[in-house]
Amino acid sequence: MRIAIYPGSFDPVTNGHLDIVKRGSHLFDRVIVAVSENTQKKPYFSLPERLDFLRQALRGQKNVSVEHFSGLLADFFRLKKASAVIRGLRAISDFEYEFQMALMNRRQAGTLETVFLMPDERYTYLSSSLAREVSRLGGNVHGLVPSIVEKALKKRALTTL
Amino acid sequence: MRIAIYPGSFDPVTNGHLDIVKRGSHLFDRVIVAVSENTQKKPYFSLPERLDFLRQALRGQKNVSVEHFSGLLADFFRLKKASAVIRGLRAISDFEYEFQMALMNRRQAGTLETVFLMPDERYTYLSSSLAREVSRLGGNVHGLVPSIVEKALKKRALTTL
Amino acid sequence: MRIAIYPGSFDPVTNGHLDIVKRGSHLFDRVIVAVSENTQKKPYFSLPERLDFLRQALRGQKNVSVEHFSGLLADFFRLKKASAVIRGLRAISDFEYEFQMALMNRRQAGTLETVFLMPDERYTYLSSSLAREVSRLGGNVHGLVPSIVEKALKKRALTTL
Amino acid sequence: MRIAIYPGSFDPVTNGHLDIVKRGSHLFDRVIVAVSENTQKKPYFSLPERLDFLRQALRGQKNVSVEHFSGLLADFFRLKKASAVIRGLRAISDFEYEFQMALMNRRQAGTLETVFLMPDERYTYLSSSLAREVSRLGGNVHGLVPSIVEKALKKRALTTL
Amino acid sequence: MRIAIYPGSFDPVTNGHLDIVKRGSHLFDRVIVAVSENTQKKPYFSLPERLDFLRQALRGQKNVSVEHFSGLLADFFRLKKASAVIRGLRAISDFEYEFQMALMNRRQAGTLETVFLMPDERYTYLSSSLAREVSRLGGNVHGLVPSIVEKALKKRALTTL
Amino acid sequence: MRIAIYPGSFDPVTNGHLDIVKRGSHLFDRVIVAVSENTQKKPYFSLPERLDFLRQALRGQKNVSVEHFSGLLADFFRLKKASAVIRGLRAISDFEYEFQMALMNRRQAGTLETVFLMPDERYTYLSSSLAREVSRLGGNVHGLVPSIVEKALKKRALTTL
Repeated sequence: MRIAIYPGSFDPVTNGHLDIVKRGSHLFDRVIVAVSENTQKKPYFSLPERLDFLRQALRGQKNVSVEHFSGLLADFFRLKKASAVIRGLRAISDFEYEFQMALMNRRQAGTLETVFLMPDERYTYLSSSLAREVSRLGGNVHGLVPSIVEKALKKRALTTL
Repeated sequence: MRIAIYPGSFDPVTNGHLDIVKRGSHLFDRVIVAVSENTQKKPYFSLPERLDFLRQALRGQKNVSVEHFSGLLADFFRLKKASAVIRGLRAISDFEYEFQMALMNRRQAGTLETVFLMPDERYTYLSSSLAREVSRLGGNVHGLVPSIVEKALKKRALTTL
Repeated sequence: MRIAIYPGSFDPVTNGHLDIVKRGSHLFDRVIVAVSENTQKKPYFSLPERLDFLRQALRGQKNVSVEHFSGLLADFFRLKKASAVIRGLRAISDFEYEFQMALMNRRQAGTLETVFLMPDERYTYLSSSLAREVSRLGGNVHGLVPSIVEKALKKRALTTL
Repeated sequence: MRIAIYPGSFDPVTNGHLDIVKRGSHLFDRVIVAVSENTQKKPYFSLPERLDFLRQALRGQKNVSVEHFSGLLADFFRLKKASAVIRGLRAISDFEYEFQMALMNRRQAGTLETVFLMPDERYTYLSSSLAREVSRLGGNVHGLVPSIVEKALKKRALTTL
Repeated sequence: MRIAIYPGSFDPVTNGHLDIVKRGSHLFDRVIVAVSENTQKKPYFSLPERLDFLRQALRGQKNVSVEHFSGLLADFFRLKKASAVIRGLRAISDFEYEFQMALMNRRQAGTLETVFLMPDERYTYLSSSLAREVSRLGGNVHGLVPSIVEKALKKRALTTL
Repeated sequence: MRIAIYPGSFDPVTNGHLDIVKRGSHLFDRVIVAVSENTQKKPYFSLPERLDFLRQALRGQKNVSVEHFSGLLADFFRLKKASAVIRGLRAISDFEYEFQMALMNRRQAGTLETVFLMPDERYTYLSSSLAREVSRLGGNVHGLVPSIVEKALKKRALTTL
């Protein structure tokens, strides 16, 4: 059985992330969406919120689970006996950061292979931070994030006025 | 009448910005330089200072006005019945951020067309943050920013020693 | 009256080109699609074919015309008393070539301002050469090029087997 | 059983290609190295030579086979009932071309998922064309290509003096 | 005698930096590694620590010295009667920032020539911030930083748990 | 004595090339401008013409000489007992090709260090091929190439009409 880990901060999950999960779930026997707790800066949504959004959005995808991890990705990778790490690659600006991380992760665990997938072109320019920013200013993020996240972003925008 | 909006934080305005305004004013009937109040991080110059620098630097350009806005650019765009948003495109690192913003803005207002203009090559590597940094360290920004900004940057550098 | 010129080899026109024409026609009083004869390498479709495809695809867009030119774009620009040159900007690889051309054109005619527009994200990765290549190998280009071009590409692919 | 196809012209195969094959063979049940006959320009090595180099270099890798195809990759993909197409991603200049191809392939076959793998950093700047060029000028390609290719390149360089 | 200055924050020095120093020391009569005090954000290691790491790592390289400076690099450059500033260029993301700095430095001192050197490909994706991050999470940075830095990073990681 | 080699096809030399030569001549005791004969495609100007343009344009620069070479740059480098190879770096599109060549050259001669210099920003977007193309179409290349080249390009454009 080949397990792939899809790590990230998912703050919050977007439809671009979900698109990558779906693609990964066709290529591997199991995909673990792994929410990182390592964020040095305070996240916009708490870890339980981020996990909850993912679990609701991914409900029904049978070979996908949602977990969280702290510390080194390479340690989590070994613990899960995974075969690959999945990352979405949208744009040039992702490219170098992702390669840097992939090479460092390979150094930390020799068998850690990073697999880059390309989201649907509708999501090429979508990121969690852009979704937060647009929502904060009263903009419309319908179709860019799952509906539960859309509601949470709106609520949060009102609270922080 | 076609109106174009040139949004930014202009913290402070540089000669590269003024070059773009001049080019835009030849292409549209009116250009509104729109200073954003949205900056999440504290700006170096206050909103009134940034507006004042722009107004003095643009005095005499008859189809150009300086305004400020908060909230979503798309809302300001609709309010002004504008035809286009102008952005300067200097370098690759601008490119992806600008495209991300342009696509998101298009989502927020279907008629919002972003028009990218290229500054004179003298300004290819000029940015507000670089002008601030050089001035802060006692360097010379003559020819890179309007003279009123040059004076304000010098004064500020002395104050913060 | 502000006239914009949209130059290219259009070998053949794609839906990405048409998307840029439409956007340009909202920003300028008139758009001249200017088919270049300068191609040093033999084009896939002849000049009359390329003009015909464009004219059929743009039929009914009232402030758009299709012309051809040889020699320097700057000379054609002056002849037409144009205000701007329109170029689509899809991807990083376009960026530097386009800037190089825009600066050189500015040198040749001081008033020649290049305006970069962004196509719909559906066309981000579409180019004439890719459409030709896919069609040549028997692939499907429906939705990527106008139907008249789709037919011509298919016919051509069969001929060159 | 998940089959991945690794297409290319392999003119000639380099150690960078072999590195990607090895990584792919850990992630999929079977990898088909698929040598394209589509090259419009005359290849440096003939199809039988290119196949022979690959077969000798990959001898003993039990879940890897070498085949050739003409026409559309998407058709070959369907024929082989494959799950993924593998591509190596070395550098920014690869990035946009690869994404363009991946999106076009996805259009041609909805289930065609392109998986990007990163070669060892030793091969980041290695390409078939660079290996040919260096060899042609009398340079040393030891360690960059399999030994059978090294010999063939040397022999060829002498012949074409 | 030609002196080159290699400026940076070196927070902390990595083997990629040392690789650049070594290359520079073959091209110039003397290389001054110049540790900047200008960092607006609090550094991870103090200035004395950063200087100490460099001095220990560079012990025995006879035409290399380690100094620190505050204020404008151009002023330090003139003070030292230097001929060139050395910068390592690893990746595209470095490129534009480095060019921006080089052009600004050239403005501040007309004779200030920036010389870009390429580190060994093993260090292409290595940076001080990545080394800090990996170490902070308990990862292994052996071979990426000098041994004195490796020890200091480990100690620091334990302290900040 | 430190010798630097500045290789290229110089077809024809531009003011951007001359700018790099001048910068290099301040950093090294001697600069050899080395015109490559390796061009697989037929050059626009013959080798004697390209050498002549360079010699006339560089007349009077006392520590600069103009030579030609065939075969591997690394062999010419060793023959000349050089310390460095100089390359101009203008734009991102140069970057990866240059790095690829620099790493390959380092493989061919371990002591071959490539030094990248940045031309004046006026020449950022200038290339030999663009100068040829503009001239061929009747455009103005004054200020972009030495006057002897300007004349030769004009003459050639008339001849090939």
